[in-house]
Amino acid sequence: MKQIHVGILGFGTVGAGVAKILLENREILSSRTGFDLNLKYVADIDTETDRGIRLAEGVLTDNAQQVVRDPDTDIIVELIGGEGAAKNFILDAIAQGKHVVTANKALIAAHGNEIVAAAGEKGVDFAYEASVGGCMPIIKSLRESLVGNRIFAMKGILNGTCNYILSKITEEGSTFADALKEAQAEGFAEAEPSLDVEGFDTAHKLAILNALAYGMKINLKDIYVEGITKITPDDIAFAREFGYKVKLLAIGKDKGDAVEARIHPTMIPLSNPLSNISGSLNALTISADAVGDMMLCGHGAGKMPTGSAVVSDITDIARNIIFGKSGRLPHLSYQPESIREIPIMPVDEIETNYYFRFAAADRPGVLSKISGILGKYNISISSVHQKGRQSEGPVPIVMLTHKAKEAGVKEALKEIRGLDVVRDDPMLIRIEDTEE
Amino acid sequence: MKQIHVGILGFGTVGAGVAKILLENREILSSRTGFDLNLKYVADIDTETDRGIRLAEGVLTDNAQQVVRDPDTDIIVELIGGEGAAKNFILDAIAQGKHVVTANKALIAAHGNEIVAAAGEKGVDFAYEASVGGCMPIIKSLRESLVGNRIFAMKGILNGTCNYILSKITEEGSTFADALKEAQAEGFAEAEPSLDVEGFDTAHKLAILNALAYGMKINLKDIYVEGITKITPDDIAFAREFGYKVKLLAIGKDKGDAVEARIHPTMIPLSNPLSNISGSLNALTISADAVGDMMLCGHGAGKMPTGSAVVSDITDIARNIIFGKSGRLPHLSYQPESIREIPIMPVDEIETNYYFRFAAADRPGVLSKISGILGKYNISISSVHQKGRQSEGPVPIVMLTHKAKEAGVKEALKEIRGLDVVRDDPMLIRIEDTEE
Repeated sequence: MKQIHVGILGFGTVGAGVAKILLENREILSSRTGFDLNLKYVADIDTETDRGIRLAEGVLTDNAQQVVRDPDTDIIVELIGGEGAAKNFILDAIAQGKHVVTANKALIAAHGNEIVAAAGEKGVDFAYEASVGGCMPIIKSLRESLVGNRIFAMKGILNGTCNYILSKITEEGSTFADALKEAQAEGFAEAEPSLDVEGFDTAHKLAILNALAYGMKINLKDIYVEGITKITPDDIAFAREFGYKVKLLAIGKDKGDAVEARIHPTMIPLSNPLSNISGSLNALTISADAVGDMMLCGHGAGKMPTGSAVVSDITDIARNIIFGKSGRLPHLSYQPESIREIPIMPVDEIETNYYFRFAAADRPGVLSKISGILGKYNISISSVHQKGRQSEGPVPIVMLTHKAKEAGVKEALKEIRGLDVVRDDPMLIRIEDTEE
Repeated sequence: MKQIHVGILGFGTVGAGVAKILLENREILSSRTGFDLNLKYVADIDTETDRGIRLAEGVLTDNAQQVVRDPDTDIIVELIGGEGAAKNFILDAIAQGKHVVTANKALIAAHGNEIVAAAGEKGVDFAYEASVGGCMPIIKSLRESLVGNRIFAMKGILNGTCNYILSKITEEGSTFADALKEAQAEGFAEAEPSLDVEGFDTAHKLAILNALAYGMKINLKDIYVEGITKITPDDIAFAREFGYKVKLLAIGKDKGDAVEARIHPTMIPLSNPLSNISGSLNALTISADAVGDMMLCGHGAGKMPTGSAVVSDITDIARNIIFGKSGRLPHLSYQPESIREIPIMPVDEIETNYYFRFAAADRPGVLSKISGILGKYNISISSVHQKGRQSEGPVPIVMLTHKAKEAGVKEALKEIRGLDVVRDDPMLIRIEDTEE
């Protein structure tokens, strides 16, 4: 049986998951593929910690360079993370003519165009299914299954930490701070959680998906990003009263000569299947001309789900090696010469429905002042809920709007904030309601 | 730009969808693939009806034989349906060394092993993503994305007609007959609906999925099949009281040296994501060692969704042609020599939870007689609901059981039916509740 030799760089959580699958499911893999995936190396600076994986003699090494340079290694799997060493090893592997698999969304979002260009020049395969949505075949769906479709929109819950925290607030009325602590205690959030809760991790993933769906270069910097740290149990309770749930959504829409790309807490109606995705689960809906709406749902992170996606990439590439030829699929989903410079629409230009919550003095005329300002900026109110008088201090006024332009909304809120009857910054949550 | 020539056999709903995608999205397809998919022929015995697709001069023909035999046609797309002409054309195309795409689940379920053997012998590609789950990448997920996983179980809503009817009964309290009539009026059910409502179409799909997931030959005849025609609004209302919805599920489970394979109306808890799949939508959950649980959801039928899946198969094969080699993937998901004879477990041997509804005389002692018989067959009752006295006639007694063996259940129900206080055949609905 022919052998394909695999070298893993990085023996952390995902590295251990990939090693476990390659070793424990080696036989089932070969009964499907007809060849043997041999785990030749696992490189990590820490060769002492027991990861519960029994590697054969000589597999574990602290010399990643040697793994990349070994002429017998066919596929290099980068699972170090970060943008420093990871990038250097990937570019070195490509330069050696090796095929590369990675799960490193931050790296691809920041340097994917450069890496893809290098892989194209060398004619090697570069695969990254595990970088978006863990085990779900999101990238395969965009590159292969939907190849005949014009894609209109993608909406996704792509960060398990945020979804876990928002689910906790929704189900238990916890504050953000308490829900975060619980998530950390249960291993669903990092000690340093800002990459997740500020929305940046989700933005990395959307940058990759936009490129695949719309035939544009990977563009991270122009994506609008807003995290979930300001969401209060009150907002989520109000959302429920209106028939909405609050999710951190990645939204990528084709707007003709631009792409709308934004990450923010979003109210979605209970009829939207994404509203049922709870806990640390991820999901993505894709709207396209032929398929209509399609949804993928599963574990978006973790040792084994992410490992599964990495192994599917390794196998795809190994099939190409056995086949005798790489480059069967473009590295993004369009041919390099068809990739266009499509701008991301500035967030000020988007139009959507809004939820506002104001902390207002409990005095006559407040509502009239606020709605007067909104009217001045062409923001039409669809409903107002003024909550009953509280013993002390300001009362919440909650409003939902019809479609309005973000730029006008910003101006209006600034002006409302200046009213002497309004305390604190107004809360704004965008609503994704009607079908587009 | 290189061209790949495609010939479609059958200009019905799906044929028209495939033609529409190939023509209208021709440019987007080539910008992704780097080659041109040329719709060279569309063959149908009816060349008169206007399908709203503008074909170039010479494309439409009533001579399918000529399309199959034309040496310039690279890929034959069989969308005739049925097991007669469709099978002959496919085998003829394979004999000519042509690659074949089909959406014909009935044909694959019945003759797939023979077709796959022929394709293997000739070394041509044979693809059928559209045969299961319409636009959803179910077959691609099983063959490629989950290649590193040991698959434990699949549970699916794979027939839109049945799901539409059951949703109507659930939401509007309609009878089966009325819901069927509505489904027919709205184009969601055929004039001759038995293939759908009796569960056979779902069985065709499960036969294909089992082969892919478990490495067995396609086996349709041993799948237990029970349709939805006996489901009453009462049963669905009782289900709701217990926190269940009723769905026609395809269930395929790995049981070690056998596979459990059955199609029947099933009560599932509201916490199961399949319970939210309403109307004509389809969905499949896959449980496997690495990914845990994953779900795909989308339109399982219809001109464009099914057309999308066919186009993805055409493109995959065309990429192989451009690549210069076919057979990159096995025709099922295992190598031919690794496909085993795994028996399907007789339905009598399955163990599950049950819902029973008896029409009983409203007399003292009835419950004791029924529960006595159940006890005799080791069927343990988890709850009983005896509904209030009605003005006339029998009253419903509803029971849920703990796990019990199907063989014992059958015997017990036969004995209960023989009681003079029980009218009509008892209703039995299996429950898929606990995680396995």
